[in-house]
Amino acid sequence: MPNSTLCLRRHLAAPPAAVWRCWTEPHLLMQWFAPKPVKTVEAVLDVQPGGRFYTSMLLPDGTEIPTEGCFLLTLPGARLVFTDCLLAGFRPAPKPFFTADISFVEAPGGTDYLVHALHANEAGAKRHAEMGFEAGWGAATDQLAALAATL
Amino acid sequence: MPNSTLCLRRHLAAPPAAVWRCWTEPHLLMQWFAPKPVKTVEAVLDVQPGGRFYTSMLLPDGTEIPTEGCFLLTLPGARLVFTDCLLAGFRPAPKPFFTADISFVEAPGGTDYLVHALHANEAGAKRHAEMGFEAGWGAATDQLAALAATL
Repeated sequence: MPNSTLCLRRHLAAPPAAVWRCWTEPHLLMQWFAPKPVKTVEAVLDVQPGGRFYTSMLLPDGTEIPTEGCFLLTLPGARLVFTDCLLAGFRPAPKPFFTADISFVEAPGGTDYLVHALHANEAGAKRHAEMGFEAGWGAATDQLAALAATL
Repeated sequence: MPNSTLCLRRHLAAPPAAVWRCWTEPHLLMQWFAPKPVKTVEAVLDVQPGGRFYTSMLLPDGTEIPTEGCFLLTLPGARLVFTDCLLAGFRPAPKPFFTADISFVEAPGGTDYLVHALHANEAGAKRHAEMGFEAGWGAATDQLAALAATL
Protein backbone atom coordinates (compact mmCIF):
# COMPACT_ATOMS: atom_id res chain seq x y z
CA MET A 1 0.00 0.00 0.00
CA PRO A 2 1.49 3.36 -0.97
CA ASN A 3 2.38 5.84 1.80
CA SER A 4 -0.28 8.16 0.42
CA THR A 5 -3.06 5.75 1.45
CA LEU A 6 -4.73 5.48 4.85
CA CYS A 7 -6.65 2.37 5.74
CA LEU A 8 -9.36 1.27 8.15
CA ARG A 9 -10.61 -2.31 8.36
CA ARG A 10 -13.37 -3.69 10.57
CA HIS A 11 -15.66 -6.63 10.95
CA LEU A 12 -19.22 -5.30 11.21
CA ALA A 13 -21.99 -7.47 12.67
CA ALA A 14 -24.47 -6.67 9.89
CA PRO A 15 -24.81 -7.87 6.31
CA PRO A 16 -23.29 -5.85 3.45
CA ALA A 17 -26.76 -4.77 2.28
CA ALA A 18 -27.45 -3.11 5.65
CA VAL A 19 -24.08 -1.33 5.72
CA TRP A 20 -24.70 -0.20 2.14
CA ARG A 21 -28.04 1.30 3.18
CA CYS A 22 -26.35 3.26 5.98
CA TRP A 23 -24.01 4.81 3.40
CA THR A 24 -26.58 5.57 0.73
CA GLU A 25 -29.81 6.63 2.46
CA PRO A 26 -29.59 10.21 3.80
CA HIS A 27 -31.75 9.64 6.91
CA LEU A 28 -29.47 6.72 7.88
CA LEU A 29 -26.16 8.37 6.96
CA MET A 30 -27.06 11.41 9.07
CA GLN A 31 -27.29 9.16 12.14
CA TRP A 32 -23.71 7.85 12.03
CA PHE A 33 -21.53 9.81 9.58
CA ALA A 34 -20.13 12.40 12.03
CA PRO A 35 -18.42 11.24 15.21
CA LYS A 36 -20.48 12.53 18.17
CA PRO A 37 -20.84 15.23 19.42
CA VAL A 38 -20.54 16.48 15.85
CA LYS A 39 -23.84 16.13 13.97
CA THR A 40 -24.59 15.62 10.30
CA VAL A 41 -27.41 18.09 9.70
CA GLU A 42 -27.85 17.64 5.96
CA ALA A 43 -27.03 14.96 3.40
CA VAL A 44 -27.63 14.82 -0.34
CA LEU A 45 -26.69 11.48 -1.84
CA ASP A 46 -27.19 11.07 -5.57
CA VAL A 47 -25.85 7.52 -5.64
CA GLN A 48 -24.60 7.11 -9.19
CA PRO A 49 -21.31 7.87 -10.96
CA GLY A 50 -21.08 11.65 -11.24
CA GLY A 51 -23.79 12.12 -8.60
CA ARG A 52 -23.52 14.73 -5.86
CA PHE A 53 -22.32 13.73 -2.40
CA TYR A 54 -23.07 16.65 -0.10
CA THR A 55 -23.00 16.67 3.67
CA SER A 56 -23.07 19.39 6.26
CA MET A 57 -21.69 18.84 9.73
CA LEU A 58 -22.49 20.93 12.79
CA LEU A 59 -19.82 21.31 15.45
CA PRO A 60 -20.76 21.78 19.12
CA ASP A 61 -19.62 25.43 18.88
CA GLY A 62 -22.19 26.08 16.14
CA THR A 63 -19.78 26.04 13.19
CA GLU A 64 -21.27 24.36 10.14
CA ILE A 65 -18.94 22.51 7.76
CA PRO A 66 -20.38 21.79 4.32
CA THR A 67 -18.55 19.29 2.11
CA GLU A 68 -19.12 18.73 -1.59
CA GLY A 69 -18.03 15.64 -3.45
CA CYS A 70 -18.95 13.24 -6.19
CA PHE A 71 -19.71 9.53 -6.37
CA LEU A 72 -17.42 7.63 -8.72
CA LEU A 73 -18.33 3.98 -8.38
CA THR A 74 -21.56 2.67 -6.85
CA LEU A 75 -21.85 -1.11 -6.78
CA PRO A 76 -24.77 -1.87 -4.45
CA GLY A 77 -23.76 -3.84 -1.38
CA ALA A 78 -20.21 -4.26 -2.69
CA ARG A 79 -18.19 -1.11 -3.30
CA LEU A 80 -18.59 2.64 -2.98
CA VAL A 81 -16.05 5.16 -4.23
CA PHE A 82 -16.38 8.91 -3.86
CA THR A 83 -14.05 11.89 -3.94
CA ASP A 84 -13.87 15.54 -2.97
CA CYS A 85 -11.53 16.14 -5.92
CA LEU A 86 -14.60 16.38 -8.15
CA LEU A 87 -18.05 17.89 -7.68
CA ALA A 88 -21.36 16.72 -9.13
CA GLY A 89 -21.07 16.00 -12.85
CA PHE A 90 -17.33 15.26 -12.39
CA ARG A 91 -16.43 18.98 -12.35
CA PRO A 92 -12.99 19.61 -10.79
CA ALA A 93 -13.29 20.80 -7.20
CA PRO A 94 -11.61 23.95 -5.86
CA LYS A 95 -9.95 22.18 -2.91
CA PRO A 96 -9.23 18.56 -3.86
CA PHE A 97 -8.02 16.37 -1.02
CA PHE A 98 -8.93 12.68 -1.03
CA THR A 99 -10.82 9.76 -2.52
CA ALA A 100 -12.54 7.15 -0.36
CA ASP A 101 -12.72 3.60 -1.73
CA ILE A 102 -14.93 1.45 0.49
CA SER A 103 -15.61 -2.23 0.05
CA PHE A 104 -18.20 -4.41 1.74
CA VAL A 105 -17.46 -8.13 1.64
CA GLU A 106 -19.77 -10.74 3.11
CA ALA A 107 -18.02 -12.52 5.98
CA PRO A 108 -19.21 -14.99 8.66
CA GLY A 109 -21.56 -13.07 10.95
CA GLY A 110 -21.53 -9.87 8.94
CA THR A 111 -19.33 -7.72 6.75
CA ASP A 112 -15.63 -7.33 6.21
CA TYR A 113 -15.56 -3.51 5.88
CA LEU A 114 -12.52 -1.91 4.28
CA VAL A 115 -11.87 1.80 3.74
CA HIS A 116 -8.98 3.14 1.72
CA ALA A 117 -8.43 6.90 1.80
CA LEU A 118 -6.30 7.86 -1.22
CA HIS A 119 -4.28 11.07 -1.39
CA ALA A 120 -2.12 12.71 -4.04
CA ASN A 121 1.01 12.21 -1.97
CA GLU A 122 2.41 11.24 1.42
CA ALA A 123 1.98 14.80 2.74
CA GLY A 124 -1.76 14.60 2.07
CA ALA A 125 -2.05 11.30 3.93
CA LYS A 126 -0.02 12.70 6.82
CA ARG A 127 -2.26 15.75 7.03
CA HIS A 128 -5.36 13.53 7.01
CA ALA A 129 -3.84 11.37 9.77
CA GLU A 130 -3.09 14.49 11.82
CA MET A 131 -6.65 15.71 11.28
CA GLY A 132 -7.69 12.56 13.15
CA PHE A 133 -8.56 10.10 10.39
CA GLU A 134 -8.14 7.05 12.59
CA ALA A 135 -10.08 8.36 15.60
CA GLY A 136 -12.72 10.16 13.51
CA TRP A 137 -13.45 7.40 11.01
CA GLY A 138 -13.07 4.88 13.85
CA ALA A 139 -15.72 6.52 16.02
CA ALA A 140 -18.03 7.02 13.04
CA THR A 141 -17.56 3.37 12.09
CA ASP A 142 -18.61 2.31 15.61
CA GLN A 143 -21.79 4.33 15.07
CA LEU A 144 -22.23 2.79 11.61
CA ALA A 145 -21.82 -0.70 13.05
CA ALA A 146 -24.41 -0.06 15.76
CA LEU A 147 -26.93 1.39 13.31
CA ALA A 148 -26.44 -1.27 10.62
CA ALA A 149 -27.02 -4.01 13.21
CA THR A 150 -30.52 -2.63 13.88
CA LEU A 151 -31.67 -2.78 10.24
CA MET B 1 -23.26 26.61 -19.34
CA PRO B 2 -21.04 27.84 -16.49
CA ASN B 3 -18.10 30.12 -17.32
CA SER B 4 -15.78 27.39 -16.12
CA THR B 5 -16.75 25.14 -19.05
CA LEU B 6 -15.28 25.14 -22.56
CA CYS B 7 -17.18 23.51 -25.36
CA LEU B 8 -16.52 22.07 -28.82
CA ARG B 9 -19.27 20.71 -31.05
CA ARG B 10 -18.91 19.09 -34.46
CA HIS B 11 -20.74 16.93 -36.92
CA LEU B 12 -18.46 14.03 -37.81
CA ALA B 13 -19.08 12.00 -41.00
CA ALA B 14 -18.67 8.64 -39.26
CA PRO B 15 -20.93 6.61 -36.99
CA PRO B 16 -20.60 6.87 -33.19
CA ALA B 17 -19.07 3.37 -33.00
CA ALA B 18 -16.18 4.44 -35.27
CA VAL B 19 -15.55 7.65 -33.31
CA TRP B 20 -15.63 5.62 -30.10
CA ARG B 21 -12.98 3.25 -31.48
CA CYS B 22 -10.72 6.23 -32.29
CA TRP B 23 -10.95 7.30 -28.64
CA THR B 24 -10.50 3.89 -27.04
CA GLU B 25 -8.01 1.91 -29.16
CA PRO B 26 -4.43 3.07 -28.56
CA HIS B 27 -3.19 2.47 -32.14
CA LEU B 28 -6.07 4.63 -33.41
CA LEU B 29 -5.88 7.34 -30.73
CA MET B 30 -2.17 7.79 -31.41
CA GLN B 31 -2.98 8.74 -35.03
CA TRP B 32 -5.20 11.73 -34.23
CA PHE B 33 -4.97 12.78 -30.56
CA ALA B 34 -2.19 15.38 -30.90
CA PRO B 35 -2.54 18.20 -33.42
CA LYS B 36 0.23 17.83 -35.99
CA PRO B 37 3.21 18.32 -35.93
CA VAL B 38 2.94 17.14 -32.33
CA LYS B 39 2.88 13.33 -32.15
CA THR B 40 1.32 10.96 -29.64
CA VAL B 41 4.09 8.44 -29.07
CA GLU B 42 2.46 6.33 -26.35
CA ALA B 43 -1.07 5.65 -25.18
CA VAL B 44 -2.37 3.41 -22.40
CA LEU B 45 -6.16 3.25 -22.34
CA ASP B 46 -7.73 1.10 -19.66
CA VAL B 47 -11.27 1.91 -20.69
CA GLN B 48 -13.29 1.36 -17.51
CA PRO B 49 -14.18 3.58 -14.55
CA GLY B 50 -10.98 4.05 -12.55
CA GLY B 51 -8.84 2.86 -15.47
CA ARG B 52 -5.62 4.60 -16.43
CA PHE B 53 -5.60 7.11 -19.29
CA TYR B 54 -1.96 7.77 -20.14
CA THR B 55 -0.60 9.54 -23.18
CA SER B 56 2.77 10.89 -24.10
CA MET B 57 3.15 13.62 -26.68
CA LEU B 58 6.33 14.47 -28.55
CA LEU B 59 6.87 18.08 -29.58
CA PRO B 60 8.90 18.92 -32.72
CA ASP B 61 11.74 20.21 -30.47
CA GLY B 62 12.06 16.77 -28.87
CA THR B 63 10.26 17.59 -25.60
CA GLU B 64 8.08 14.72 -24.40
CA ILE B 65 4.93 15.54 -22.44
CA PRO B 66 3.46 12.66 -20.46
CA THR B 67 -0.09 13.04 -19.13
CA GLU B 68 -1.77 10.81 -16.55
CA GLY B 69 -5.49 10.66 -16.02
CA CYS B 70 -8.36 8.35 -15.18
CA PHE B 71 -11.50 7.21 -16.97
CA LEU B 72 -14.69 8.03 -15.07
CA LEU B 73 -17.56 6.99 -17.32
CA THR B 74 -17.24 4.67 -20.32
CA LEU B 75 -20.50 4.07 -22.18
CA PRO B 76 -19.49 2.43 -25.50
CA GLY B 77 -20.43 4.51 -28.52
CA ALA B 78 -22.28 7.03 -26.36
CA ARG B 79 -20.28 8.88 -23.70
CA LEU B 80 -16.72 9.04 -22.43
CA VAL B 81 -15.65 10.99 -19.36
CA PHE B 82 -12.09 11.24 -18.10
CA THR B 83 -10.13 13.58 -15.86
CA ASP B 84 -6.58 14.54 -14.96
CA CYS B 85 -7.78 15.36 -11.42
CA LEU B 86 -7.50 11.66 -10.60
CA LEU B 87 -5.01 8.96 -11.56
CA ALA B 88 -5.64 5.25 -12.11
CA GLY B 89 -7.72 3.78 -9.28
CA PHE B 90 -9.25 7.22 -8.64
CA ARG B 91 -6.20 8.40 -6.67
CA PRO B 92 -6.04 12.23 -6.41
CA ALA B 93 -3.59 13.69 -8.93
CA PRO B 94 -0.80 16.09 -8.00
CA LYS B 95 -1.77 18.71 -10.61
CA PRO B 96 -5.53 18.59 -11.21
CA PHE B 97 -6.80 20.70 -14.07
CA PHE B 98 -9.82 19.49 -16.03
CA THR B 99 -12.42 16.86 -16.81
CA ALA B 100 -13.47 16.04 -20.38
CA ASP B 101 -17.07 14.90 -20.91
CA ILE B 102 -17.56 13.72 -24.48
CA SER B 103 -20.78 12.54 -26.01
CA PHE B 104 -21.38 10.79 -29.31
CA VAL B 105 -24.92 11.01 -30.63
CA GLU B 106 -26.06 9.35 -33.84
CA ALA B 107 -27.10 12.00 -36.37
CA PRO B 108 -27.99 11.90 -40.09
CA GLY B 109 -24.78 11.03 -41.96
CA GLY B 110 -22.69 10.51 -38.85
CA THR B 111 -22.18 11.69 -35.29
CA ASP B 112 -23.08 14.77 -33.33
CA TYR B 113 -19.84 15.08 -31.34
CA LEU B 114 -19.85 17.22 -28.22
CA VAL B 115 -16.94 17.93 -25.89
CA HIS B 116 -17.30 19.73 -22.58
CA ALA B 117 -14.08 20.65 -20.76
CA LEU B 118 -14.92 21.27 -17.10
CA HIS B 119 -12.71 23.31 -14.78
CA ALA B 120 -12.82 24.21 -11.10
CA ASN B 121 -13.41 27.87 -11.89
CA GLU B 122 -13.43 30.52 -14.59
CA ALA B 123 -9.68 31.11 -14.22
CA GLY B 124 -9.04 27.45 -15.11
CA ALA B 125 -11.21 27.69 -18.22
CA LYS B 126 -9.50 30.94 -19.22
CA ARG B 127 -6.08 29.37 -18.83
CA HIS B 128 -7.18 26.37 -20.93
CA ALA B 129 -8.53 28.73 -23.60
CA GLU B 130 -5.23 30.64 -23.63
CA MET B 131 -3.32 27.35 -23.94
CA GLY B 132 -5.15 26.95 -27.24
CA PHE B 133 -8.08 24.69 -26.40
CA GLU B 134 -10.12 25.73 -29.42
CA ALA B 135 -7.33 25.50 -32.00
CA GLY B 136 -5.74 22.40 -30.44
CA TRP B 137 -8.88 20.35 -29.90
CA GLY B 138 -10.22 21.70 -33.20
CA ALA B 139 -7.21 20.48 -35.21
CA ALA B 140 -7.19 17.15 -33.36
CA THR B 141 -10.91 16.77 -34.07
CA ASP B 142 -10.28 17.30 -37.80
CA GLN B 143 -7.78 14.44 -37.60
CA LEU B 144 -10.27 12.35 -35.62
CA ALA B 145 -12.97 12.99 -38.22
CA ALA B 146 -10.70 11.97 -41.09
CA LEU B 147 -9.57 8.79 -39.34
CA ALA B 148 -13.05 7.75 -38.16
CA ALA B 149 -14.38 8.12 -41.71
CA THR B 150 -11.92 5.43 -42.91
CA LEU B 151 -13.02 2.77 -40.40
